[in-house]
Formats: sequence, C-alpha cells, structure tokens
Amino acid sequence: MKNIKLTIEYDGRRYLGWQRLGNSDKTIQGKIEKVLQQMTGEEIEIIGSGRTDAGTHARGQIANFKTQSELTPPEMIDFLNRYLPGDIVVKAAIEMPDRFHARYNAKGKKYTYYIWNAEIPSAFERYRSFYFPQELDLEKVNQACQNLIGTHDFIGFSALKKTKKSTIRTIEDISLKQNGHLVAFTFVGNGFLHKMVRILMGTILEIGTGKLPLETIDEVLDHKIREAAGETAPAQGLFLDDVYY
Amino acid sequence: MKNIKLTIEYDGRRYLGWQRLGNSDKTIQGKIEKVLQQMTGEEIEIIGSGRTDAGTHARGQIANFKTQSELTPPEMIDFLNRYLPGDIVVKAAIEMPDRFHARYNAKGKKYTYYIWNAEIPSAFERYRSFYFPQELDLEKVNQACQNLIGTHDFIGFSALKKTKKSTIRTIEDISLKQNGHLVAFTFVGNGFLHKMVRILMGTILEIGTGKLPLETIDEVLDHKIREAAGETAPAQGLFLDDVYY
Repeated sequence: MKNIKLTIEYDGRRYLGWQRLGNSDKTIQGKIEKVLQQMTGEEIEIIGSGRTDAGTHARGQIANFKTQSELTPPEMIDFLNRYLPGDIVVKAAIEMPDRFHARYNAKGKKYTYYIWNAEIPSAFERYRSFYFPQELDLEKVNQACQNLIGTHDFIGFSALKKTKKSTIRTIEDISLKQNGHLVAFTFVGNGFLHKMVRILMGTILEIGTGKLPLETIDEVLDHKIREAAGETAPAQGLFLDDVYY
Repeated sequence: MKNIKLTIEYDGRRYLGWQRLGNSDKTIQGKIEKVLQQMTGEEIEIIGSGRTDAGTHARGQIANFKTQSELTPPEMIDFLNRYLPGDIVVKAAIEMPDRFHARYNAKGKKYTYYIWNAEIPSAFERYRSFYFPQELDLEKVNQACQNLIGTHDFIGFSALKKTKKSTIRTIEDISLKQNGHLVAFTFVGNGFLHKMVRILMGTILEIGTGKLPLETIDEVLDHKIREAAGETAPAQGLFLDDVYY
C-alpha cells in the first residue's frame, strides 16, 4: 500500500468547497476522488489538511490517500491533470511513510485574504478578492492585526458553537502587502477554527473603517462572544496558501 | 449633445468579443449599449477604439458615444457599474469635444499577451494566459521581438485577405517581463491588424521552441505569406491595455 501526498491548487468559484457532499460533483474532494478512482480502479478516499468553504481558493492544499496503484507519482500528476477540470490542478505528488496523515500531522497553515480597496471594482479580481470600496485607516488596521497575534482562545472569532475540543490557537503573524488597489492580508498560525480567517478579516476591516473600535479584538478574545466581532468576510477573497508539517 | 469617452475594463471569457452581433447579449458592446439605453432612454451606439476577439480581455478599451443625457460623467460611471455585469467595468468617463472619435483618433495601442510557461498548468491563470509548457530559448524569443520592431507591411502576420487599405504599421516596442511562470509580452504600436498580436505571438513562440527559424520574421514581412508564420495564439492570453490619442 502506498501513501501519496498531493499538493493541490484550485479556483474555488465553481465549487461548494473542499468537502465531498454525498455524490455531489460540485466539491473539490469529490472531483479528485472520482479521477483517482478512474486512475486506480479502487474506491479511494482522500484526506485533506482541512476543509475550505464554498468559493474559497487554494494554492497549496495538501491531501493524502492510500493506493495499491503501480503508477509513479509523476505519472499520477499527469493522469490527474489530464482528467481533472482545469480549475483544479495537482502541483505535486510524493510517496510518504504510511503514518503520514494530511490533517492530523498539519502543524500550521498560511492563508491570504485579498481585498480590492478602490471605489471602482475590478473586472478581473472580483472572484479572487472582496470588493471593499470604503477607505481604511491603515494604522488602525495594522494595530488590529498586531493585537490578534499570539496564543488565544479564538472561539469568538469562529463559527463554532460550544465544543469540547480546544479552541486555543496561536497566530504567529499577520502581514499586509499592497499592490495597487489589491491588498493582501497573510495569516500564519498553528491552526484556524471554522471561518476564523474570514471573521478576523471582517473584524479588521470594520476596525479600519471606524465602524468598530480597536478594543473589539480584546473584548472578543476575553468574552468569547461572536456577536461582538465583525461580519464574516466573503469566501472568494480567501486562499489557502500553504500547510506546514 | 454631449460626447462621452469611456475607459472600459473587461474579462472577455464569457463574451463573443467587443463587436455587437445583431441582438446578441454576448458581446461587450451590446451589454454596454443596453445599459446606456436604460440610462438615457435613447438609442445609443458606442464607437470602440477597435474590436477585440471572443475571449480577449481589456484593461483600457476606449469608446465614445453621444447623448443628450443630463447626468454628469461620475453619475454615468455609477449607473453603468451598477447595471453592467461584474466582468465589465467602466473605469472612467469624461466629456470630450464633439469631434472626438474613439476609432479614427486612436494614434496607438498597447497590448499585453500572457503565457503560462511551466509544465504544470495554473488553476487561476488559465482564462488569462496561454498555457505553454514547452521550453523557450529566451535569446531567440528576444531576437524575434527585436526583428519585428519597426515599420513594415504586416499583412502576412494578420488574418486579412488582400485589402485596399494600408497594412503598413509601426511596432514601437515589444518587451518581455517574467513573473514566476507567467511571462508577459507587451506590444506598443500605432495600430495592429486583425489578429496581428496573436499571430505575432504564435510565431515568436514557435521561434522560441525552435519549430520555426528566426528568419521566418523577415520572410513573412518580405513575402507577405500568412502560411509561413506561426499559429494564431489563443485569444484568452490577450489584453488590450491602453489606447493612445
């Protein structure tokens, strides 16, 4: 039995997200499993490093699966990219030790969230960014990002209800990069809760426009109340860039 | 009567090109005219600086139209961007002297053609570049570009049959810029014949892979034989960036 690790890039705009839903053809996982089945003749389940929401993109999603196929990893890449739709691309495949698990072994992740910060929208960036025409106070935005860095209970910045699992995570860095009207927010951390990046982004942006005070960050971290945070920023601005092992 | 000049950006992937075809809803011109009619109550014809092919994009297409509307140009921008589909965006509107004509007065144009030059395709760039996995000899590519610069009869590099109009054009510059696997070829000239940029690109690429010799350029310019040039590169890699007046 081989254990194969895939690095996957996808444009999420046409999909209902990563996770297979019944037999729906509209998920990334479902599409890849279908082609793997063609390739191997086996019933294959792939394990992703985590889910991505409907409309969210990935440049470096990681997944693994087990197979008895005799194809080499480069042959698998060729087969997958030949039969997958063009908006899902396998960038790398490599054989791993049997114990490797894409979800359990993930030690951290990098996400980037793009906003299009201009009065006039962009015809090209609309499915890969959040059109946000309001003016931002970049000093406040930066301060909000700084206040989020560290180890905290982020449940108030997530779509989770009460849970027995730990909701403590560490954000190592949030950095901003401006390229014309496109502003990229990069989040690096040891893990992110359900919708956490999108809720953090919504909150950062509302602090940047003055709709919420800077103190919102500490309040939500201390009192763990989702309602005190900002809106959930839309999925199409979000990219899963990298998973660390 | 006002004469309004528009600067238009569009993602051409869903459209049959710039030029209105009967009542088809699938052209950029048709979409814009329809919204202008809503806006003014008048039957409006817009004049583009030139056509773009099905699938081709624009960052700076220019068009003008005449209207008796009392809206100001900023109000027109708002109305248009509210009712146009999100992949067509009006970036600017300005009132011009009555004699301004977007096609007749165009003194030059800038186009950029993108190729994705890597073995593995891109999930994101596939509608905005030409996936070209073959290796390119960049020295030959640069030399081919240099040999095209200047004033020549470019009919052999066009989709035109014999014509009474002049097919002599001046290419002022062709420049290359590499950004990872994405290579941008920028063409500046006083005008480009039908499909000329795409046929030039196809020829440059075939010279770059060694399929055609460098001498092809001079041969096609001298003997004006379309068949001696390379294939027409696909429309989706092409962007009309700017029109000069």
